[in-house]
Amino acid sequence: MKILVAAFDSFGGEKINPALEAVKLLADEIAGAEIVKLEIPTVFHKSAETLREKALEVKPDMILCVGQAGGRFAITPERVAINQDDARIPDNEDNQPIDVSIQEDGAPAYFATLPIKAMVEKIKAAGVPAAVSNSAGTFVCNHIMYQALYLAEKELDNIQAGFIHVPFIPEQVVDKPEKPAMSLEDIAKGLTAALEAMVEYHGKEDIKKIGGTTH
Amino acid sequence: MKILVAAFDSFGGEKINPALEAVKLLADEIAGAEIVKLEIPTVFHKSAETLREKALEVKPDMILCVGQAGGRFAITPERVAINQDDARIPDNEDNQPIDVSIQEDGAPAYFATLPIKAMVEKIKAAGVPAAVSNSAGTFVCNHIMYQALYLAEKELDNIQAGFIHVPFIPEQVVDKPEKPAMSLEDIAKGLTAALEAMVEYHGKEDIKKIGGTTH
Amino acid sequence: MKILVAAFDSFGGEKINPALEAVKLLADEIAGAEIVKLEIPTVFHKSAETLREKALEVKPDMILCVGQAGGRFAITPERVAINQDDARIPDNEDNQPIDVSIQEDGAPAYFATLPIKAMVEKIKAAGVPAAVSNSAGTFVCNHIMYQALYLAEKELDNIQAGFIHVPFIPEQVVDKPEKPAMSLEDIAKGLTAALEAMVEYHGKEDIKKIGGTTH
Amino acid sequence: MKILVAAFDSFGGEKINPALEAVKLLADEIAGAEIVKLEIPTVFHKSAETLREKALEVKPDMILCVGQAGGRFAITPERVAINQDDARIPDNEDNQPIDVSIQEDGAPAYFATLPIKAMVEKIKAAGVPAAVSNSAGTFVCNHIMYQALYLAEKELDNIQAGFIHVPFIPEQVVDKPEKPAMSLEDIAKGLTAALEAMVEYHGKEDIKKIGGTTH
Repeated sequence: MKILVAAFDSFGGEKINPALEAVKLLADEIAGAEIVKLEIPTVFHKSAETLREKALEVKPDMILCVGQAGGRFAITPERVAINQDDARIPDNEDNQPIDVSIQEDGAPAYFATLPIKAMVEKIKAAGVPAAVSNSAGTFVCNHIMYQALYLAEKELDNIQAGFIHVPFIPEQVVDKPEKPAMSLEDIAKGLTAALEAMVEYHGKEDIKKIGGTTH
Repeated sequence: MKILVAAFDSFGGEKINPALEAVKLLADEIAGAEIVKLEIPTVFHKSAETLREKALEVKPDMILCVGQAGGRFAITPERVAINQDDARIPDNEDNQPIDVSIQEDGAPAYFATLPIKAMVEKIKAAGVPAAVSNSAGTFVCNHIMYQALYLAEKELDNIQAGFIHVPFIPEQVVDKPEKPAMSLEDIAKGLTAALEAMVEYHGKEDIKKIGGTTH
Repeated sequence: MKILVAAFDSFGGEKINPALEAVKLLADEIAGAEIVKLEIPTVFHKSAETLREKALEVKPDMILCVGQAGGRFAITPERVAINQDDARIPDNEDNQPIDVSIQEDGAPAYFATLPIKAMVEKIKAAGVPAAVSNSAGTFVCNHIMYQALYLAEKELDNIQAGFIHVPFIPEQVVDKPEKPAMSLEDIAKGLTAALEAMVEYHGKEDIKKIGGTTH
Repeated sequence: MKILVAAFDSFGGEKINPALEAVKLLADEIAGAEIVKLEIPTVFHKSAETLREKALEVKPDMILCVGQAGGRFAITPERVAINQDDARIPDNEDNQPIDVSIQEDGAPAYFATLPIKAMVEKIKAAGVPAAVSNSAGTFVCNHIMYQALYLAEKELDNIQAGFIHVPFIPEQVVDKPEKPAMSLEDIAKGLTAALEAMVEYHGKEDIKKIGGTTH
């Protein structure tokens, strides 16, 4: 089995992206699956093209995209991606779309086809805080998750795909009071656990476990 | 013009629902529009039936549903509702669906058809904190927003519809340390401003204004 | 009985100080006590001189100083003032002392001599969130509380004195996401309840009630 | 040079105390100073007796006590300890003092005699979030800091002493949503940096650097 794991480069004035650094730390094989790593630019659409090219070349069995969510306390597999770009800040090539559809012929939203509840359980069992998130925002992270699922539907035979947001690492918050952080080692440990769950539940139903929020 | 404004009764151990109390305080006419108020039960599907019956009877030009988001700092018009119930707590009739579609033949998500950016601007101009929210959660609030938009599409000639989440009021957080609150008067003031924006932008495009989040 | 209630003018780029605005809303008589209101400048030492002059003139039975604590969720009577100025920002006359004693011959700290636990209970009973705070910071608020207690000890026959911090009001946080606020009416209601407790417990022991923190 | 580093055992339902675990990870020699480690019980007064016995035996040049501050985002050297116990929860021997002086003949407060600003700078330079804290609470952490400084004054020839609070570690917050954590390795790295600063500034003035708060 082959899993394509894509992570963004740094953005928003940060020198590094913990998502990318953690993906670099992943083993090349996890739970018997080959891990193919890919760096993608923090740019609307160009990120998706980079992912598409690699996916068509590698022909993975699953795709996991990873991005930074500065301010979150836990590793958060995303439940859903919505068909809308609404950039609070410019991307790395100064695009700042406001309330624009990502794909004219795409669904209003795609639900992750990865076992997000099992992933959360597995990450927590590894001693790392995790939770399902119900919004990937409206910037490039939601964009790439949407694009990955659109791509899977249109060109990749509906392979399973999804997205995980990870917190800042401590170095990033030294001058950001009251911002949570997680060590790179714990992020990598959490991503490894998530990938193990993906392999274990590949082609199977996700576990039924409470993971929603009242708002 | 007629606007149906629906709000939930109390749930989750709370004695009141600030959404409902604030809606009761609204004037019967706002910006020339007649405001029709409706209390709906905090129950999956039954809430939607109550809304449907009233809407078919009243034939409103727009629908605004309002619910409590304990822990939020601002009044938050919701951008999107997703086709999924995932209840962290039981509803008021002890239903607790986990990862279940709301409507088998519904879209994966519906975007609010209300001018959410204009509503946020108008609420803030009234001196009340407001922001677009990108997730209404996976409980009855997301449920009723989804159902309202589904109903509008299927039976109400695509009238505009959407949802607003409001914070706790001070009385509710007296014994909940570090939880934000907003006075009932400010919530009612904010909802009034939102309704004014709905009337002003009825049938028109929303304003183009940054209102997204990076995650 | 006469109570001198002093509040700071605005600082730190804010147009108003909710402490001062709320004090202006107080009745001139509360629980039988005459309320003498005083505006003090947000300036190290000068604030204390203003307070001292008024106190020597008015000869109050108690002193309550009130200041803004932007970011707090509740009305917080302070437990203790420490003999140290350490300004994160300049005061309104550009003084920015760092790690300097307030009074060379003063105690390292003064505990509030007001019934802070009873005040918290009374504020909460009025439906307004409240808690004891164990630090008034190291800016002018801690400074004036220290000075008020020093003054009471040295020149005012040990009359009871203390300090209350109040949150931002909604107008102040319209463009400050995730910052809690409290309406001016609720702040005034809370201060009134605190003053009632001060009158009721004047000269008596405070109630014994848990109000500490583990850190 | 010899430094006595004391840390509390676990309390409040937690299985471990990250303070103690991190202290165990410290090297036996840091910046040329011998590090003498001591576990102290989370019990009012008994903790102080344990510290006193060890200090009289070891005759350290400095004392650093370390405790857990669940909910804090950073490593926080404490500025001041106050002469008051006010326990929100019982200690490990079910004592729960409310508003009681720690030492009848003690000062109202003791300021840390460690170079807290230099310690914060050094911890941050090591890539670990840190800040001065202005309150150690009113539980055993404030108690032991107060007792250590009282002891230093009364029986240890005024050697330098102080206290550092450390955050939860990730394992502790797996089921505590929205609670920050720091890895044990980063806590140990931060404590090491703090001890290096203590050695470097031993007997010297602390640096003059902004480190206060407005409240």
